[in-house]
Order: sequence, then structure tokens, then C-alpha cells
Amino acid sequence: MTVKTLYRVKFFDTDTMGVVHHSNYIRWFETGRVEFLRQLDITLTELMNDGILFPIVEVGAKFHAPAKFDDELEIVTTAEALTRAKMKFSYVIRRCGEEKILVEGTSMNVFTFGGKICRLPEKFFSRLERGLD
Amino acid sequence: MTVKTLYRVKFFDTDTMGVVHHSNYIRWFETGRVEFLRQLDITLTELMNDGILFPIVEVGAKFHAPAKFDDELEIVTTAEALTRAKMKFSYVIRRCGEEKILVEGTSMNVFTFGGKICRLPEKFFSRLERGLD
Amino acid sequence: MTVKTLYRVKFFDTDTMGVVHHSNYIRWFETGRVEFLRQLDITLTELMNDGILFPIVEVGAKFHAPAKFDDELEIVTTAEALTRAKMKFSYVIRRCGEEKILVEGTSMNVFTFGGKICRLPEKFFSRLERGLD
Amino acid sequence: MTVKTLYRVKFFDTDTMGVVHHSNYIRWFETGRVEFLRQLDITLTELMNDGILFPIVEVGAKFHAPAKFDDELEIVTTAEALTRAKMKFSYVIRRCGEEKILVEGTSMNVFTFGGKICRLPEKFFSRLERGLD
Repeated sequence: MTVKTLYRVKFFDTDTMGVVHHSNYIRWFETGRVEFLRQLDITLTELMNDGILFPIVEVGAKFHAPAKFDDELEIVTTAEALTRAKMKFSYVIRRCGEEKILVEGTSMNVFTFGGKICRLPEKFFSRLERGLD
Repeated sequence: MTVKTLYRVKFFDTDTMGVVHHSNYIRWFETGRVEFLRQLDITLTELMNDGILFPIVEVGAKFHAPAKFDDELEIVTTAEALTRAKMKFSYVIRRCGEEKILVEGTSMNVFTFGGKICRLPEKFFSRLERGLD
Repeated sequence: MTVKTLYRVKFFDTDTMGVVHHSNYIRWFETGRVEFLRQLDITLTELMNDGILFPIVEVGAKFHAPAKFDDELEIVTTAEALTRAKMKFSYVIRRCGEEKILVEGTSMNVFTFGGKICRLPEKFFSRLERGLD
Repeated sequence: MTVKTLYRVKFFDTDTMGVVHHSNYIRWFETGRVEFLRQLDITLTELMNDGILFPIVEVGAKFHAPAKFDDELEIVTTAEALTRAKMKFSYVIRRCGEEKILVEGTSMNVFTFGGKICRLPEKFFSRLERGLD
């Protein structure tokens, strides 16, 4: 499954070089991830209400070309692995309607309960695994 | 009491106009506030551990001149009112060693317990009121 | 004229108190302002291409109740004064479909050219003044 | 060469999980990089004044354990490669005085002039290469 999320670059996302500060793409990966899970009917709030946290343990990004203020971006989020132990996603960010990739990246989250690594309960996993279709 | 906090502007604090994004000064007011309280031996963590939150209810700022990347700033925080019900602070931000005021502002916080406005317990208030000296 | 902008709260907008950090509402005022101007066919990029900057000189906000992660917010932006010398806006932020005001605020921007206060050229002002209708 | 930079976690750096939002470590890598270069007597401002930009092309991070509000962190920045074409750094973030690594990461920047990849002029490179000692 692949989920496309749209975002228009804000003034506060940019820096003195006149382009988006690279740390913001890492935030938009998260936005893509959250929307991907929402498509599976999983919200972070529901997970947190059950005491399950989902710390990110790894992130990586390659920055090919910069986005600028007011650019309309699409964040394409793809599940690479969704198990009871972890979620791996990959991301591609482009300007809407353009082929050129601006940024690509990957992330891995695990699940924790009471501060310890846990396996995702069935009630969530049954929804999550549909994301690999 | 007045507390001076130093901060060097980071690249991610700036925007496409080549200056600090104004929202960051609001964050640095908070930094000044936190350091002011630390001088009184009050940490937000200790307050939170006792179930006391301190939501900000009002903030205002006037931006006279911009700070830029790598500028060394001083945030001067002054207590305007410190009661069992609220904390009012004022702030002045300058480049270190310069007279010219870049930004000035004010804020008001209240105290809450269990989501409701509360009066600050004596254990904290006895420390807090020293800030008006 | 009043312009409504929608925004869903991101995880990175929140803080340890479990609510949106107050500095972010200041950023969302800007988002509202940018969208207001876009409705008048004015983009910040076009202004900057003509050498015109639009520094913010004043901002104020009252925080009545907190927004949380995943809340869908509406930022309602209203022009209070739009002249060749300045733009004053007011803002109201609510959860979509709710009456209760979470945050309200105001801002004032001026126009500069070459680092000095300037009067907005007719080409932009003729579009801007329609915002007071 | 290794440069240690200190940073105390701010309230606005944290999120609803009560820990530092992961995107901020990416920003602190930049802080470490900037301070590393400053030790070599290179400032980003001087580079920009000469028309040289230094876009980041790659970043990666592993998050082993979270930092919290008010933690005093040290960001240890080490040069992995410093050539006329690129700068590669690695980073380790710990709580001050603790052995445990919270976050580690790497980054790569290139140099550009007029929007194109360039080789760093001698005046800067002679300073930069000392960073590999």
C-alpha cells in the first residue's frame, strides 16, 4: 500500500538559504506515516490510549533537490515491513505533478509498552498488516 | 529579579528572509522563563511530578529589528507578577553587548491541577515569590 | 474578508504537556495570513521577487484551551487594516465544527524595500485593499 | 578532530510522548557541525558571503534512548571526511557525564556555487582540512 499526503511549504519551514530546512522533511516523513496508519484505521491516539508507544529507532534521508516556500509537495509513503515488532516505511517527496524526486528516505519504528519493547496486540496488527497489500 | 540567558541563533531558526523567524522569539521567551524559575530552584519537571501544569494564557511581542544566523543573543527575563494564581514575565532580547532592543514581549501563565485552574502550593510559592525581589 | 484555513495537528507540534506548544499557533497565524493574501492573488514570493519584504512587527495571542495531536483545526483570518504601510490581521483558531475558541490573536506587518520601511506599490495595493471588503 | 557542544533540552523540543521529538536531533547534528567548523575558523556566514552554499545531501540517525525536557546533552561531532567536494561528519549524543549513547548519526554536505556543485576554494579548504587531524 502507498499513501500520498499533500503539504504546502510554509515560510517557517525555510531557512536563510531560501530553501526548506532539511530537518523538516524528517517531520513530513512522520506526517506521511501517520496518514498511512490512518488509512488502516490506526491512530496514534488509540495506540497511546492502550499504553502503546511507537518510538522511532532509525531514520535516513537523501536530499536530491530543495523545495522552496509555497511549493506544493506530495509525500508518498510505502510500507516496507509491518510486523508485530516493527514498522518500516520508505518515503519519496516530490513537487506535485513533477517526476523529479526531491527527497527520499526510510524509517523504522518499534512498539513499546511500559517502556519495554513489545509485540503489537492483535487488535492493531490485524489492521496494520493490511498495509502490506 | 532579572535573569539573563544566552542563545546563539541556529541555522534552523532562520527563514527565507535571512532572519530569525518571529515564532522563535516566542520560544526563547519560554527559555528565559524556564531559566528564571531555575534560579528560584523551581523546575517544570518538579511541578509536573506534582501534577501541576502551567499553561501559557497570553503572549505578546514587538519585533523592532531582526536577529540573524549565528548572532549571540541575550534574553533578559523580568518578573512582573508572581502570585499563587499566575506568573507574568516581560522579556527583552538584544545582541550580546548591544544596547538596541531587537524584540520585547510579555507572557502570562496560570497554574492548573487535574485540568483546572489551581493556586500554587506553598512549597513552590515560597520559592517563586523571591523572584519579585 | 475572512479566510478559513484548515490544519491537522502533527505529532511534532505537541509538547510534554500533551498539547500543542503555544509557539505553533503563532506559526499558524502566519499560515492564515499567507492564505488570506493568496485569496487576493498576492504571494509572498511575488513580493520578494520585487524586493519587498513584509516583516512582522507585532503579534499577540490569548490561549483559551489547548489543541491536541490529530485535532483538525480551522484558522479564521480577518483583515483589520490593510494600507500601503501595514497589514493588520486578527485570528481565531477552533476545532473544526466547534464553537469554542481555542486561541485568538492579532498581528501587524509592515512593508520594507532595501531594508527601509516603504509604501506598498499600487500593483500590490490594488489587490490588497479588496481584502477589506 | 572532535568537537563537543552542549545543549539543554527545551520544552518546545519535546512531544506528547514526553520525550524529545526525533527531528530535533537532526537539528542538533547541524549545531554540532556548525561549532566544529567554527573551531576551524569557518563560519557559514563567511561561506555564504562568498556565494558558497553547503547543502546537506544525506543524513542518517539511530535513536537508542530518548532525551527528556531539561536534560543536558552533549553532541560530539567528528569529521569522517573533509575534501574540496564534501564534508562527512558523524555524531554521538549523550546526557552530559553519561556513557550511554542516546542517538548517533552521520551527515554529508557538498558545496555549491551559483546552484552548481563546486570545489571548496583554497582559502576555506586550508582551514577545513585541519579538521581531520
